[in-house]
Amino acid sequence: MQIYTRTGDKGYTKIIGGIQLAKDSQRIKAYGTIDELNSFVGYAITLIKNNDSLKKELIQIQQYLFDCGNDLATPTGKGTYRVTSALTEWIEKCIDAHAGVPQEVESFILPGGSQAASILHICRTIARRAEREIVTFQWTNDMNEEVLIFVNRLSDYFFSIARVANANEGIEDVLYERSGKVFHMDLKKEDL
Amino acid sequence: MQIYTRTGDKGYTKIIGGIQLAKDSQRIKAYGTIDELNSFVGYAITLIKNNDSLKKELIQIQQYLFDCGNDLATPTGKGTYRVTSALTEWIEKCIDAHAGVPQEVESFILPGGSQAASILHICRTIARRAEREIVTFQWTNDMNEEVLIFVNRLSDYFFSIARVANANEGIEDVLYERSGKVFHMDLKKEDL
Amino acid sequence: MQIYTRTGDKGYTKIIGGIQLAKDSQRIKAYGTIDELNSFVGYAITLIKNNDSLKKELIQIQQYLFDCGNDLATPTGKGTYRVTSALTEWIEKCIDAHAGVPQEVESFILPGGSQAASILHICRTIARRAEREIVTFQWTNDMNEEVLIFVNRLSDYFFSIARVANANEGIEDVLYERSGKVFHMDLKKEDL
Ligand code: B12
Ligand code: B12
Ligand code: B12
Ligand SMILES: C[C@H]1O[C@@H](n2cnc3c(N)ncnc32)[C@H](O)[C@@H]1O
Ligand SMILES: C[C@H]1O[C@@H](n2cnc3c(N)ncnc32)[C@H](O)[C@@H]1O
Ligand SMILES: C[C@H]1O[C@@H](n2cnc3c(N)ncnc32)[C@H](O)[C@@H]1O
Ligand SMILES: [Mg+2]
Ligand SMILES: [Mg+2]
Ligand SMILES: [Mg+2]
Repeated sequence: MQIYTRTGDKGYTKIIGGIQLAKDSQRIKAYGTIDELNSFVGYAITLIKNNDSLKKELIQIQQYLFDCGNDLATPTGKGTYRVTSALTEWIEKCIDAHAGVPQEVESFILPGGSQAASILHICRTIARRAEREIVTFQWTNDMNEEVLIFVNRLSDYFFSIARVANANEGIEDVLYERSGKVFHMDLKKEDL
Repeated sequence: MQIYTRTGDKGYTKIIGGIQLAKDSQRIKAYGTIDELNSFVGYAITLIKNNDSLKKELIQIQQYLFDCGNDLATPTGKGTYRVTSALTEWIEKCIDAHAGVPQEVESFILPGGSQAASILHICRTIARRAEREIVTFQWTNDMNEEVLIFVNRLSDYFFSIARVANANEGIEDVLYERSGKVFHMDLKKEDL
Repeated sequence: MQIYTRTGDKGYTKIIGGIQLAKDSQRIKAYGTIDELNSFVGYAITLIKNNDSLKKELIQIQQYLFDCGNDLATPTGKGTYRVTSALTEWIEKCIDAHAGVPQEVESFILPGGSQAASILHICRTIARRAEREIVTFQWTNDMNEEVLIFVNRLSDYFFSIARVANANEGIEDVLYERSGKVFHMDLKKEDL
């Protein structure tokens, strides 16, 4: 098989259903950034030590990121969406399960620590960049809004497991020295 | 030598030929993203094991990325372009040479595997981000269009060698479970 | 504590002072990119070997990046700025102190070498991407202009220490073959 088709050499490309778009259109930016995030998750997986269940969780997230990409590449009426609220429920359960591991903090923490934790913070911020691209896209386009919700939760998930990765290696997160009390322990699910 | 000149502290900078531009102008975004990609290629090189010819190939690509940057930084009439169709022919030959190594797939693959493969997937997606910036630039500016063609091929090149990197370490690519048959083996050079 | 609050699921969020903004507004892009940069600095720190003073310097930079984020997240009148010209003076002293270590070059160098140097080049280019986002923001918003100056200097700082990282490991930077004489040794502080 020859991977390159030369069809995109003038700045246009196709999406699911065969419609042609400029490569810099907002839809392409949105799923292109999901693809970038997915690649960083792939790298993060290579750095996680002695935690096969976390690796498996991240591979599941890679699968779900393809589901996100699929939905963003599908214009209305040209296919069925794959991201449902079940994915968000799943990832919330993952966050809840990890929440007990690291020590609670009230201050912002410096993104870093172990290699795994550092890359997971990178994933966190790229998930947020992807979210911003999706937000721009959805102002003016019909899309599966479950994708936006899932990607929003995803960045909180990466924050949680970055902290777990450090805790597991006995590394303490370094606090931002001038931080206020930003994480409030009395914010509970019930208040939301 | 003192590296910092303080000349850019107000948001403006200069390009080849001495013309002043805002730092957030599309030309600067285009070659700034090429520079970011080049840095990731530099990191990828550090992770490739037992494959000096692939390392050499990637250093050659770093040189060519500077040629791309040069052409994007050169306004019409202020210099000669460096990127020609010969670069694209060279990279197509590289892709063809690598094509035989990994097993053919028909499904999308999760970007990951070895550390080298993961970073090469990151290079792939950043090349595509750079391509999007160049596409935006060229709608309204005169530029060397060979750069756009080369960068389009570059992302396919990174896909190919990410798969080679895994194959060389005996790592099998994980398929996207819900993928259709997206890579078609009957797409041949002759049909393009 | 529950990290996710679900308040941002529709594409809006809050800044310091409680004002609501779209997540893709330019202010959020600016400090979101600073956060991304900060995460890469976190990763860089994990790769630096036998140089505790450089590690400490980078942790200080992480603290200062939070100060930058704070100021960018603070609309006029809703808080006090934290970035002052003292930060820029500090980082210029750091650059000056590192300047003697590597061999002077007149040509552009390929971003790469050791793993630490490669990631520091990545930090350099992401600092420049952050700078571009801040530049866009400041055209139409009141902001602490010391942040822009500091971030401009920051990319030169990363260039300097990328070269130091290579020099310390005895790695010679590879030159861009077709580079002109771009770094001019007779450019001195006095001429600026
Ligand atoms: C969306 C998309 C992406 C998204 C994936 C989105 C997501 N889920 O996250 C992203 C951006 C990640 C992506 C990346 C890449 N993609 Co892509 N992608 C597409 C696109 C637009 C749709 C694919 C899709 O999911 N279709 C939905 C499927 C299920 O429906 P379908 O296409 O109609 O096919 C069904 C049937 O009709 C039938 N069928 C249709 N046509 C044909 C033809 C033949 C011969 C056969 C037998 C059957 C058949 O088979 C399917 C049933 O299972 C296609 C172009 C297109 N318009 O199809 C390119 C396409 C598949 N991508 C392509 C390429 C090259 C890539 C990349 C390698 C690019 C790169 N350098 O990064 C990467 C690989 C990523 C990876 N990790 O594997 C090429 C493949 C060329 C080839 N030689 O086969 C295509 C065809 C575009 C092109 N013309 O260049 N891609
Ligand atoms: C384009 C550009 C880039 C691009 C490179 C594009 C590419 N090819 O990919 C990118 C974005 C990658 C880049 C990055 C950087 N750059 Co730059 N870049 C430029 C720019 C705009 C043009 C350079 C160029 O290629 N010129 C073409 C050459 C061949 O032509 P020329 O300039 O006219 O020079 C010829 C003659 O006229 C003569 N000449 C001209 N002036 C002088 C002066 C003296 C004293 C002498 C002896 C000779 C001489 O020498 C050349 C013949 O060989 C210059 C600013 C400018 N307008 O010149 C900055 C400039 C060279 N960059 C500079 C800097 C600091 C950097 C970075 C360190 C910034 C950073 N922190 O990331 C990095 C280093 C990257 C690396 N890996 O080495 C500074 C150097 C300051 C200094 N102290 O010397 C400059 C001068 C901008 C500035 N005023 O701050 N850059
Ligand atoms: C700016 C900001 C950021 C910036 C930081 C900017 C910088 N300096 O670089 C960035 C983008 C980096 C960021 C990232 C994150 N953030 Co944030 N961030 C904010 C924001 C907008 C302001 C925080 C701040 O600095 N405030 C200034 C402080 C000092 O003033 P203050 O808020 O008025 O608080 C003072 C008093 O009024 C009092 N106070 C105020 N309210 C309350 C409530 C209670 C119960 C108590 C006891 C006291 C109290 O305490 C402070 C005095 O010390 C808040 C939302 C908001 N509007 O407050 C979210 C917020 C703090 N972030 C939040 C989250 C979740 C995150 C991330 C985990 C998101 C992610 N997934 O990446 C990361 C964590 C990053 C890290 N490394 O730790 C949540 C925390 C939710 C929770 N469960 O506690 C908040 C509340 C937003 C929200 N509603 O979801 N963030
Ligand atoms: C924690 C803080 O981060 C900011 N915030 C929320 N979503 C994003 C995003 N996608 N990118 C960058 N910043 C974001 C808001 O200001 C929030 O309050
Ligand atoms: C494989 C698929 O990726 C999309 N595509 C093509 N070029 C780019 C790019 N620069 N960035 C992101 N996505 C792109 C198109 O939809 C193509 O069909
Ligand atoms: C060294 C060269 O890099 C370019 N330059 C200056 N600032 C930035 C930035 N934030 N991003 C990308 N490129 C930039 C200018 O063209 C300068 O001359
Ligand atoms: Mg959020
Ligand atoms: Mg392409
Ligand atoms: Mg600068």
